[in-house]
Amino acid sequence: MLKVKIFGACGYGGVGMIELLVRHPEADIVSLIDIENTALPISSVYPHLTGFCDLEIISPEKDNPGDGEANALFFATPDGVGMKWASRYLENGMKIVDYSGDFRFSTQEEYASYAGKIGKPSLHHAPELLERSVYGLTELNREAISGASLIGNPGCFAVATILALAPIVKARAVDIEKLICDAKTGVSGAGKKPSSAFHYPSRYENMNPYKVGMHQHAIEIENQLSIQAGADCKIILNTQVVPITRGIMVCAYAQLDENWDLDRVFDLYKDFYRNEPFVRILPLNQAPSSKDVRGSNFCLLSVHVDPDTGTCLIMGQIDNLVKGQAGSALQNMNLMHGLDETSGLYHPPMIP
Amino acid sequence: MLKVKIFGACGYGGVGMIELLVRHPEADIVSLIDIENTALPISSVYPHLTGFCDLEIISPEKDNPGDGEANALFFATPDGVGMKWASRYLENGMKIVDYSGDFRFSTQEEYASYAGKIGKPSLHHAPELLERSVYGLTELNREAISGASLIGNPGCFAVATILALAPIVKARAVDIEKLICDAKTGVSGAGKKPSSAFHYPSRYENMNPYKVGMHQHAIEIENQLSIQAGADCKIILNTQVVPITRGIMVCAYAQLDENWDLDRVFDLYKDFYRNEPFVRILPLNQAPSSKDVRGSNFCLLSVHVDPDTGTCLIMGQIDNLVKGQAGSALQNMNLMHGLDETSGLYHPPMIP
Amino acid sequence: MLKVKIFGACGYGGVGMIELLVRHPEADIVSLIDIENTALPISSVYPHLTGFCDLEIISPEKDNPGDGEANALFFATPDGVGMKWASRYLENGMKIVDYSGDFRFSTQEEYASYAGKIGKPSLHHAPELLERSVYGLTELNREAISGASLIGNPGCFAVATILALAPIVKARAVDIEKLICDAKTGVSGAGKKPSSAFHYPSRYENMNPYKVGMHQHAIEIENQLSIQAGADCKIILNTQVVPITRGIMVCAYAQLDENWDLDRVFDLYKDFYRNEPFVRILPLNQAPSSKDVRGSNFCLLSVHVDPDTGTCLIMGQIDNLVKGQAGSALQNMNLMHGLDETSGLYHPPMIP
Amino acid sequence: MLKVKIFGACGYGGVGMIELLVRHPEADIVSLIDIENTALPISSVYPHLTGFCDLEIISPEKDNPGDGEANALFFATPDGVGMKWASRYLENGMKIVDYSGDFRFSTQEEYASYAGKIGKPSLHHAPELLERSVYGLTELNREAISGASLIGNPGCFAVATILALAPIVKARAVDIEKLICDAKTGVSGAGKKPSSAFHYPSRYENMNPYKVGMHQHAIEIENQLSIQAGADCKIILNTQVVPITRGIMVCAYAQLDENWDLDRVFDLYKDFYRNEPFVRILPLNQAPSSKDVRGSNFCLLSVHVDPDTGTCLIMGQIDNLVKGQAGSALQNMNLMHGLDETSGLYHPPMIP
Repeated sequence: MLKVKIFGACGYGGVGMIELLVRHPEADIVSLIDIENTALPISSVYPHLTGFCDLEIISPEKDNPGDGEANALFFATPDGVGMKWASRYLENGMKIVDYSGDFRFSTQEEYASYAGKIGKPSLHHAPELLERSVYGLTELNREAISGASLIGNPGCFAVATILALAPIVKARAVDIEKLICDAKTGVSGAGKKPSSAFHYPSRYENMNPYKVGMHQHAIEIENQLSIQAGADCKIILNTQVVPITRGIMVCAYAQLDENWDLDRVFDLYKDFYRNEPFVRILPLNQAPSSKDVRGSNFCLLSVHVDPDTGTCLIMGQIDNLVKGQAGSALQNMNLMHGLDETSGLYHPPMIP
Repeated sequence: MLKVKIFGACGYGGVGMIELLVRHPEADIVSLIDIENTALPISSVYPHLTGFCDLEIISPEKDNPGDGEANALFFATPDGVGMKWASRYLENGMKIVDYSGDFRFSTQEEYASYAGKIGKPSLHHAPELLERSVYGLTELNREAISGASLIGNPGCFAVATILALAPIVKARAVDIEKLICDAKTGVSGAGKKPSSAFHYPSRYENMNPYKVGMHQHAIEIENQLSIQAGADCKIILNTQVVPITRGIMVCAYAQLDENWDLDRVFDLYKDFYRNEPFVRILPLNQAPSSKDVRGSNFCLLSVHVDPDTGTCLIMGQIDNLVKGQAGSALQNMNLMHGLDETSGLYHPPMIP
Repeated sequence: MLKVKIFGACGYGGVGMIELLVRHPEADIVSLIDIENTALPISSVYPHLTGFCDLEIISPEKDNPGDGEANALFFATPDGVGMKWASRYLENGMKIVDYSGDFRFSTQEEYASYAGKIGKPSLHHAPELLERSVYGLTELNREAISGASLIGNPGCFAVATILALAPIVKARAVDIEKLICDAKTGVSGAGKKPSSAFHYPSRYENMNPYKVGMHQHAIEIENQLSIQAGADCKIILNTQVVPITRGIMVCAYAQLDENWDLDRVFDLYKDFYRNEPFVRILPLNQAPSSKDVRGSNFCLLSVHVDPDTGTCLIMGQIDNLVKGQAGSALQNMNLMHGLDETSGLYHPPMIP
Repeated sequence: MLKVKIFGACGYGGVGMIELLVRHPEADIVSLIDIENTALPISSVYPHLTGFCDLEIISPEKDNPGDGEANALFFATPDGVGMKWASRYLENGMKIVDYSGDFRFSTQEEYASYAGKIGKPSLHHAPELLERSVYGLTELNREAISGASLIGNPGCFAVATILALAPIVKARAVDIEKLICDAKTGVSGAGKKPSSAFHYPSRYENMNPYKVGMHQHAIEIENQLSIQAGADCKIILNTQVVPITRGIMVCAYAQLDENWDLDRVFDLYKDFYRNEPFVRILPLNQAPSSKDVRGSNFCLLSVHVDPDTGTCLIMGQIDNLVKGQAGSALQNMNLMHGLDETSGLYHPPMIP
C-alpha cells in the first residue's frame, strides 16, 4: 500500500497526482506540503477535490519526515526544491519521485549544463544523490527504477521525444547527429502561474515557437538517446505553444539509412514497444490525435518515411500532465513499491 | 478602378474577398456568383455583411461574361471550377485570379501529378490556358503577375513555406534535396463545410497531423523552390491541424552548408525581402506569433541556426485566409490593374 | 452485477456510458448496438477505448433481447428509438434507462405536446409504457426509480434547471408562474453530428441564443416543478450555446416572496440537498464554475437574492454529458439494481 | 481633422483605439501616453502595429497639454486616472473621452456610490468636472455629446444593457422595478493584466458568474434607464465570463404590461433605432450571434415575448472592445468634432 506525501500540492503537478491517487486502489494520501495556501484544506484551493481530498496543506517545515506515516513522496515542485529536501525523506526510508530536473542527471557536470539553461546556480545542492538517482522514463529504465529509491522524473517534452526516437536511435537506423524534433505543447506545461503569454486573450487563436533551440529538455533527451545509441546523439528541439490546455505532439525527423524502409521501421517500433501497457504504435498511414490521449497515461506513436527526401518521421502524442508528468511519476512509484505499474493509471481518455 | 466579380462568393475565400473589397478605395463588387444560395442576398447568408454588400447571389449560368460590367474576376472556388469557366471571362477581356490549383502549373504533366494527389481527373479541362497562367506568389513573381491576365493563386501552405525557404534555397545555402517543413494550420483552411474532424467538440483541445507526406501543396512548393534554386528541390511537408481558426505557422528545417552561419542567413533574409511591404524579418532570437498576423496580409519570418546539428530553422506565420488566400489574390489583382499592390490590404492585425 | 447493453453506442451518450462502465467496479458491458459502424469494434470508431472496450457493434436487429446475457439496457438514442424497441427488452426482464424524451411523460397527451416541439408525430409508439415509466431525476424521484424497470432520463437542461429551482418552488417561496431560466450549454449537447452551427470556425469566439422560448426541455421542467409545487409552474427557458464542449450553466430568476430572505433561501437549499451525494450548495457569495464539475456527476448550486428587485437568483453548473446524461442514467441504473447509487460515479472533475 | 492623444496607450482600450485610428480617414495619432513601457515605441510592445504606429510612449509627466498638437484626447485608463489629469487638457481646449467611470456621473453623490462598488475613495478628485461631463452612450445622448468637451464613455455592460432596454423602459411597457439582465462577457473585458481567473488553462472550457449582483455597471444602467423612463428603474445585473475573447451578450428580461404584445414591442424597437447606423434589430424569431459583431461597432438586438410567463426578452450582442469601448469612444469624438459619427468606424465584422 502506498502512503503518499505530495510536496508541492498546489501546482498542476500536485493536483494531477491527487486526482490520480484518489482513484488509486492501493494508495492513500497522507500529507500535502506546499509553501502556498498553508493551513487551508486543499479543497478550498481546488473546490473540485471536495470530499475526495480535504487534507490541510502544511508548510515544508511543518512536515515531519520521520513520522512513519508515508512510504512514498512526490516532489511536484520546480527545479531546486527536491534537492534541498530529499535527503531527510530518504534517510527515513521513503521512496521519492521528483518532477523537476534536480535528479535527472547522474553527474554534477551534466547537471551544471542543465542548470545553465534554466538560469540556476551550477552547483547541485545534493550532489551525492545524483549517482543514486535514476532517470524515470519507465519504458527505457524499468529495471533500474524498480530497485531505486530516488527518481528524476523526465521532462514532459523528453517523455514524448525520447519515446518517439529511442527505437530508431538504438537501432542506429538514422543519422543520430542530425535529429530534429518539432514539439508543440499545451499551455498547462507552463504551470498555473498567470503570465502575459498565457493570458486567455493573448493565447486563444495564437501559436508560437519559444525558447527556440534553447529548451532545457534537450539535454536529457540527448543524454538518454545517446545511452540508447551507444554514441553521441544531437538534436534540435523546437518547442512551440498552441492554444490547448493538455497535450504534447512531437514530430521527430531523422535521415534514414539506406538499408531501412518504412516496413522495417514499423516492425522495429512494434517490436520495441510490444509489451508496453502505455505505448501504442498506430497502424501505417494513421497519425495520432491529442484527443486520443487526453486525461490518460498513453503515448501514441506513428511512423512514416518520405521516399523523396529519405526522411523518417515519427509522430507522438501524450497528455503532458499525465504521461508527461504525474502519470509517469505514479507509474514509477508503483514499480518502486512492487505494485503493478498500471495500478491507478489504466483508464481511457475522456472524449469529447 | 477594379470592378469585381466573385465566383464562389459563399465560401470563406469569397467572404474574405468581400470583406477586403468593401474597404478597398479603388474597387467595387459588381457580381457575386455561386451554386449555393442563389437568388438570396449575400447578407442573408452572412448577416455581418448587411449594409456593406447586399448583392444577390446568382448562378454561374446567369452571369454574363460579356456584360462589360467588370474587369476583374476571382475564382474563390475549389479545384476544377476555374478551368471550366475561365475562358469565357478571359475572352471578354477580364483579368482573373483563381484560388485553386487549376492554374498553378504550366504544363499538363505537372497538373496531372497534382490532380492525382487530390483525386481529380488527370486531364486539365483547359490545357491551353496553362501556359499563359502565372503562379501568383507576388514576392517571387511580381513582374510576370503585373503583365498577366490569369493567375493561379498559391495554396496557403505554399505561401508560407515558399516565403520561408526561398532565400536560402536560391542562395543554395542548404541541402535542397532534404528540406523539411513542419506546418500547422488553423481550421478555416478546410473551408466552411462541416465535417467530423472539424466539429467543435472534436477539434477543441485537439491537434493532429493529416495527409502525412501527401499534401498536394508539396508539388507547387517543390516547383517554385526549384525555380529559385535552379535545381531540383525535395521537401517533406508535414501538415497538422491545431485548434485555431485563422493562421498557418511553418517551421522549415534544412541542413546548412558549412560556409554559412546565422548572421549570414539573417542578412540574406533581410536583403531578400527588404522592399517587400508584407514580409517582415524579425530580429534574431525572436519567433513570430500568429496573433501578430491575424486578419492581415503580413508574413512574419524569423531565422535560427542550431550549432550542434547544423540545422537552419526558418519560422513563418501568415493568416491563411488573408496572405494565404484572399489577400494574396487581391495583391495580385491590384498589380494586374496597375494599382498599388497594397491598396485595400495595408492594415494591421486585430489584437486581442 | 450490472450486465449492460448500450443501444446507441456510437454517440456521445453511448461513449460517455462506456467510459463510465469500464471503470465501474460492478458492471460489465456485454453488447453494443447501433445502426452505424456495425461489425466494427467500437475501438476502431473511438480509438481511445482500445483495450478497454473492443466489442463489435451490432445492429438492432442482430441483438437478441432474450439471450439472457444482460440485465440492464441504456437507450443512448435520439427520440423515437426507445419507444420502438423497449418492450422486447422489458419482456425479457431487463431494466431500461432511455436518454430521450420517449419516457419522460406519463400520458399520451403530455407526450404529444413534447413531440410537437421536436417535430415528431404526436402519437407515441408504445403508449402503454408511459404509465410504468418513471422520470429519472434521481434527487427528486429516488424511491420510484429504485422500484422501476423503465426510466425516462431527464434532458440535460432539465437536470440543471429542476435541481436549481425545485427547493424554492416546492417551498412556494417564489412566484411560480413567472420563472426565468437563462441557460448556457456547451456544444456537445448537440451531439456528434457535424453541422454549420458547430463547425469549429463558426463556433469559436461565438455565443448565441437558439430555439428562443421553444426548447423542448421546458415541458418536462414545468411538469416536474409543478409536481414539486403542487400547482402549475410556468417558466421561460432561454437556451444559449457558448464555445465550450462540456457544461451547462443555468441562472434561474424568480420573484421572491416578501417573507423570505437570503438566509432562509440558503438554509432551504442546504437542507433540501443535505444528503445528496452529487449536489452541492456553495457558500454564500460564491458562484459555481463549470471547471469544477467537468467530467464529473456533480451539480453545484449557489443562491443569491437581489434586495433592490426582490429577485432570487439560483446559479447551477453540471457537466451536460455526465450529470446531464450518462452519469444520471448510471445513477438511476445503480439504484434500480440495488447498488450504491454512486458506484462507478463518485470521482472528482479533472483540472485543468 | 482629429489630432489625437491616447492616454493609457498600452492597454486593450488604447490599442483598440490605435487600430481604429490608423485606418481613420480624418484622424492622426500625435501622442501616446502611458506609465508602462515609456521610451519604447508602441510597436515594440505590440509588434502588429509596426509600420502603422511607431510612436514612442511617453510618461504622463512628459506630455505637454499645451503643445497645441492635439485637439482630442482619450483616457483609455482605469478609474481614477482621468479625474487627475483631465483639467489641464481641457484648459488647453482639447476635447476628452474617458473610458472609465470617472465622468459617467453628474454628481459627487452618484459617483460616491459607484466608487464604493469598486473600492475607490468616495471623493471625486475633480468634482467640478462632473456637471460638465456628458454620459457617452451616443444613441441616447447624441445632441449633448455633440456639444460637449468631456465625455464619460459608458461601461461595456452598460452599452449593451441600456441599448437593449431603453426602448421598452422609455415606453414604460414593462415593470421597470424588476428588470433582469443576464450578461455574458468575453475575457478581454478584464483587461490585459494576467490573473488566475483568466489564465488560459483555467479559462478554457470554463464559464462562471462573478461579482454576483455587485457589478459596478449596474449603477449607470439604472441611472440612464431611469432618465429614459422618467422614473426609478431597478435592475439585477448578473455578469458572467465565458471563454471568448471579444463579445458581450445580454439577455434582458422584464415583465411586459398586458396591453403590449410581441408585434408592438418589435415595432417599438424598429422605430426607436430606425436611424441608428450601428444598432440593428433582427427579424422576429432570430437571435443575434457574437460572431456577427466581432471586430465591429455594431449592436444587434432581437426581441421576444414569452406568452406563458408574460416575459419580454431582449437579446443583444456587441464587441466589448469596440462598441463596448474604443468604438463608442471614437463615435463620440467624431461627433464632438463635427465629423460624421461613423467615420473610421463603419466596417463589417471579420468572419470566420
